[in-house]
Amino acid sequence: MTTDLRSRIRAANESTVEIMLSAWDNVVWVGNETAIDVIPGMTPTTVMHAGPPITWVDMCSSMREGVIGGLLFEGLADTAEEAESLIAGGGITLAPCHEHRTVGGMTGITTASMPVHVVRDDQNGVEAYCRLHERKRALQWGERDQQVLEQLRWMTDVLSPMLSAAVRAKGGLAVKSITARALQMGDECHNRNVAATSLLVREMMPDLIALDWGKDDLEKVARFLQEDDGFYLHIDMAAGKAIAEAAKGIEYSTIVTTIARNGVEVGIRISGLGDSWFTGPADLLRGSYFPGFNDDNVDADMGDSAIMETMGLGGQIQAAAPVFQQIVGGTVQDAINHTREMMDISFGRNPAFVLPMLDFQAGPIGIDMLKVLETGVTPIIDSAMAAKKGGFAGAGQVRVPMECFQKAFRAFAERYGLGQ
Amino acid sequence: MTTDLRSRIRAANESTVEIMLSAWDNVVWVGNETAIDVIPGMTPTTVMHAGPPITWVDMCSSMREGVIGGLLFEGLADTAEEAESLIAGGGITLAPCHEHRTVGGMTGITTASMPVHVVRDDQNGVEAYCRLHERKRALQWGERDQQVLEQLRWMTDVLSPMLSAAVRAKGGLAVKSITARALQMGDECHNRNVAATSLLVREMMPDLIALDWGKDDLEKVARFLQEDDGFYLHIDMAAGKAIAEAAKGIEYSTIVTTIARNGVEVGIRISGLGDSWFTGPADLLRGSYFPGFNDDNVDADMGDSAIMETMGLGGQIQAAAPVFQQIVGGTVQDAINHTREMMDISFGRNPAFVLPMLDFQAGPIGIDMLKVLETGVTPIIDSAMAAKKGGFAGAGQVRVPMECFQKAFRAFAERYGLGQ
Repeated sequence: MTTDLRSRIRAANESTVEIMLSAWDNVVWVGNETAIDVIPGMTPTTVMHAGPPITWVDMCSSMREGVIGGLLFEGLADTAEEAESLIAGGGITLAPCHEHRTVGGMTGITTASMPVHVVRDDQNGVEAYCRLHERKRALQWGERDQQVLEQLRWMTDVLSPMLSAAVRAKGGLAVKSITARALQMGDECHNRNVAATSLLVREMMPDLIALDWGKDDLEKVARFLQEDDGFYLHIDMAAGKAIAEAAKGIEYSTIVTTIARNGVEVGIRISGLGDSWFTGPADLLRGSYFPGFNDDNVDADMGDSAIMETMGLGGQIQAAAPVFQQIVGGTVQDAINHTREMMDISFGRNPAFVLPMLDFQAGPIGIDMLKVLETGVTPIIDSAMAAKKGGFAGAGQVRVPMECFQKAFRAFAERYGLGQ
Repeated sequence: MTTDLRSRIRAANESTVEIMLSAWDNVVWVGNETAIDVIPGMTPTTVMHAGPPITWVDMCSSMREGVIGGLLFEGLADTAEEAESLIAGGGITLAPCHEHRTVGGMTGITTASMPVHVVRDDQNGVEAYCRLHERKRALQWGERDQQVLEQLRWMTDVLSPMLSAAVRAKGGLAVKSITARALQMGDECHNRNVAATSLLVREMMPDLIALDWGKDDLEKVARFLQEDDGFYLHIDMAAGKAIAEAAKGIEYSTIVTTIARNGVEVGIRISGLGDSWFTGPADLLRGSYFPGFNDDNVDADMGDSAIMETMGLGGQIQAAAPVFQQIVGGTVQDAINHTREMMDISFGRNPAFVLPMLDFQAGPIGIDMLKVLETGVTPIIDSAMAAKKGGFAGAGQVRVPMECFQKAFRAFAERYGLGQ
């Protein structure tokens, strides 16, 4: 590369990380809405999914289960068979969440009537969405029986509007304030969200109580939030997506603005390369299975939750959450080593997200594809496994395939040239 | 010491630590009561205080303020002057909380009408008490104006009975379950209790909502708990005291069962030496003052909260809470080194309280006065400073004076002999 190109890239990357940091300062959870009312391109017959684009035929098993569940939830089909023939007949549009200012956990299935968190950054003029995290058995894991659909209906009718009214009453909730505190409390905010969720619940309860709403519903909401340690994740993911939207499309920038997986492929997007996906094969996670699960009955790496890593959390900062090492059979030193590796492939640091275990050094932010290629170190994702038949099967870690970065580099070279 | 004496001591210490571990397994917060209804020896004219016994004349300034506040709260005096002449006239009994199955934070002031947490261990047949942690300005810090007394009245009339009813509705709350989880979340459960308090609030909210109680009170309770990161501490302290009661009075045991400070003296008690206090001078804490405070306008080490260190928390396990090092100007390595030092002077380990930063090693429990004397290492206490005029002035750490252990050792030698 020429010196000129290098300095253009450096300036672009500096801008990109600056925008990311400014966006982290400004992302506010402003309320919840119904998907079709806010998500651009959502229609009554659209099913959005996690990861890069994929056809029905190519989808992994749990994601197909999720798509069917979404159609059952919408009342577009009464049985799995009806759902499948509707899809086969071309009556349904499948689309990646990420192409519609949205992210989805695991299968990522998002349909018209589902409620979504709305996170807004007025400074950068962006807004992004993510479905509410379901408790226990869930469509997000590809489960779709009556119990799952009923919980989702209750979340739609009660939980979401109550949370939305409460957060509006307080004038919105700055996402950074909770995320930053949770990082001091053993969360890395992808696999572990128990501190963040607990802080969130404490923060929201007075406003929930103050609502003019029935006591029985209030109690059910409190019990739901008591039982779901992961509830905060999907608010943080919507924030991450808003940040990604602000940081994308900066000419010459080599910073990663998307990492997303559909269970078959991992796709990345690069700020300077706009909306193009660069994909590689999704691997199985390495970690701990729940009883009954093994390499043969789970799907490979899946979900848009790697928006957390894209924005400097999760696998980027394992040193924040030594407890995660118990899942992956690692040591505290592994967590520190991984974090230092991630610092090596990141362009910036986020002074708001400090790592106690590293003597309060600022965590990395802004994965630079050039640094990935130069070092041969690929980003780590802390995530979870979905059973092929649907269901939460375990948790672990996985690397983004190098192939994604190699493809992105070729596209970068084509677009910008490499100079002499 | 003879081999025989050494083996008697070893066996006694093993029993003591075994009881401590069994008590940790069994301490349950069963409800709240009014002090005079449960605390043995409490009378309408008793004021209990933190630390070893001390007279009115010898008390430090903030503790005197607290005593006056307690008398104002009880309506035994209408002004500070009236309170002081009541005390001077011998109308008031001063007594250490610790001699009445009770512990108190900072000044520790506990009077007849105040509500207390009741923690019970049915297995070991013990019950202990601690006043509720006040939010912000507080009698526990020696503050005693109208605002402070009004908050305390509201806590007595609303907060305490509501919490009590809620915890009874759930059949009690196992203290260990919250403490153990909080240690994975950056709390050492003396200086830092934000994770524990957040877990507690999430746990209690459904039961609080389910009560047949007014919505306005419920909202105020939720706001109080939202604003007081330290609320859990006094439940944990009552648990610690119950454990101390179970572990005391074991012949030949050299394990510390009390560390308590009254702002003038630090007193320890040893299991094999019953109820005798062994005292040394209280030092100033080293850490961070809030603006306006310095060595000249704060009182020395004070409070029964070192029951947490006595039971394996706080300064015993600084490695659980690297954030505390920001207060004392230390590094993560200091936190680890301190924890290793505390392991060196402790007889046992608590497998329920593991330290993520030390690759999930079990934390120390059962400070052994012989190990303190052999190593020259004294226990560390993570605590806070009270302003002489009353008020929260800062936080820091301090060591228990070696003199306490030297005196205890002389008493032990007198009682049990040292053999040949």
